[in-house]
Amino acid sequence: MIILYNAPRSSASRRVRLCLEEKGLAYDNRIVDMGKLEHHSAAYLKINPNGVVPSMLHDGKPLHESGTICEYLDEICPDPPLRPADPYDRALMRNWIRHIDERIHNLIIFNWRHSFGEMASKWTDEELAAKLASIPSKERQESWLRVARRPYTEEERAEARGKLVVLLDRMEAAIAASCWLVGGAYSIADIAAVPFVKRIDEEIAPDEVTTAKHPHVADWWSRIQARPAFERANIGPFVDPS
Amino acid sequence: MIILYNAPRSSASRRVRLCLEEKGLAYDNRIVDMGKLEHHSAAYLKINPNGVVPSMLHDGKPLHESGTICEYLDEICPDPPLRPADPYDRALMRNWIRHIDERIHNLIIFNWRHSFGEMASKWTDEELAAKLASIPSKERQESWLRVARRPYTEEERAEARGKLVVLLDRMEAAIAASCWLVGGAYSIADIAAVPFVKRIDEEIAPDEVTTAKHPHVADWWSRIQARPAFERANIGPFVDPS
Repeated sequence: MIILYNAPRSSASRRVRLCLEEKGLAYDNRIVDMGKLEHHSAAYLKINPNGVVPSMLHDGKPLHESGTICEYLDEICPDPPLRPADPYDRALMRNWIRHIDERIHNLIIFNWRHSFGEMASKWTDEELAAKLASIPSKERQESWLRVARRPYTEEERAEARGKLVVLLDRMEAAIAASCWLVGGAYSIADIAAVPFVKRIDEEIAPDEVTTAKHPHVADWWSRIQARPAFERANIGPFVDPS
Repeated sequence: MIILYNAPRSSASRRVRLCLEEKGLAYDNRIVDMGKLEHHSAAYLKINPNGVVPSMLHDGKPLHESGTICEYLDEICPDPPLRPADPYDRALMRNWIRHIDERIHNLIIFNWRHSFGEMASKWTDEELAAKLASIPSKERQESWLRVARRPYTEEERAEARGKLVVLLDRMEAAIAASCWLVGGAYSIADIAAVPFVKRIDEEIAPDEVTTAKHPHVADWWSRIQARPAFERANIGPFVDPS
């Protein structure tokens, strides 16, 4: 039995949901309310000492890190394959996941502005201090402090946007050569990129995910969105329509 | 044919050499002179756009990232195995590598003080600016700037030391349960930890790698050093004897 502790809009959660849906694996979908900092509660830290989403329990055994979880799912359920058969391509896939992971802070700068920023700005200093003390990762403490008290500046957002566009540049070259990121087939490397491209297309730099700017990425993005698993994985809009 | 571009004291290089020696794979050992910033030269960046060591060419195909390279080596040469057979243990192995990787900056604070610090402190401002401009990673730019102009303080070193001791604490619990880090057998997770424990034992916190403080880690470290591959991988002292 698979239990997925996740949040609808968390990038890493979206990856694991996509992977589960591609495999057609049933799972118990447990929503962690990040707005209430449930991912920093004592109960959740027992499942994932890093205090981030998602976490997965498979027959009671806990796993975290979206890239690791996706590769695990491909090992226990190899059909349809989400990793290239060739060892070299598989290594390239792992480096793609890592390369994309290293850019998560650039996405957070945009993502946390929305509901998190509105909520955290209302916390008193005492509330903020108590919440920060419950967060295991220093980087994430800093991110919460920033959205609560010193929102990222336009300059910082421009720098983060630039780094995300560089990711599109690298993806463009790879997809032009191989139709997908690695080895000519849809893989966990593509899945790793989906939550990033979704947000770039939706808000961060929509004019970059276009035939004019990154034609192969734009085509890849259409093909990704047309996959039945994409619909089932609930990769919806980031900001609530209002 | 395997060509390894590496540096004798680079932690990531040491991992790949250990893996190659465990496998008994022959390789062409090409030393990259990091003191001369050869890893930021145009020629090297063609092999590894990240400008870090090591890089490996296998039959002309380039690979980087030590964890990725080690797992690739285990896929093309499965004997002796350096990954657990069980998918769950394999996932734990990947998370160990990642967990250790995330602590590399704490090691750099100690490692770069030696030859790099002495060299970089003599650069003129113009030389420093030119060298920084050639470095792809912002984090590594910062590390060079620090050793050149504002050496890490005793307070920063104490914080880094503390995080490395926490790594030993986590290792202690795992080794107590399984003899090695994962699944009861020597694996790439153990290899990933070797360059860290070597430096902690040698300089950073030698009294922590002891029977008194971390008995299972101390025993693990004796067993690692007794492996024939350890000798062949040339994991020598960090500071030149003088």
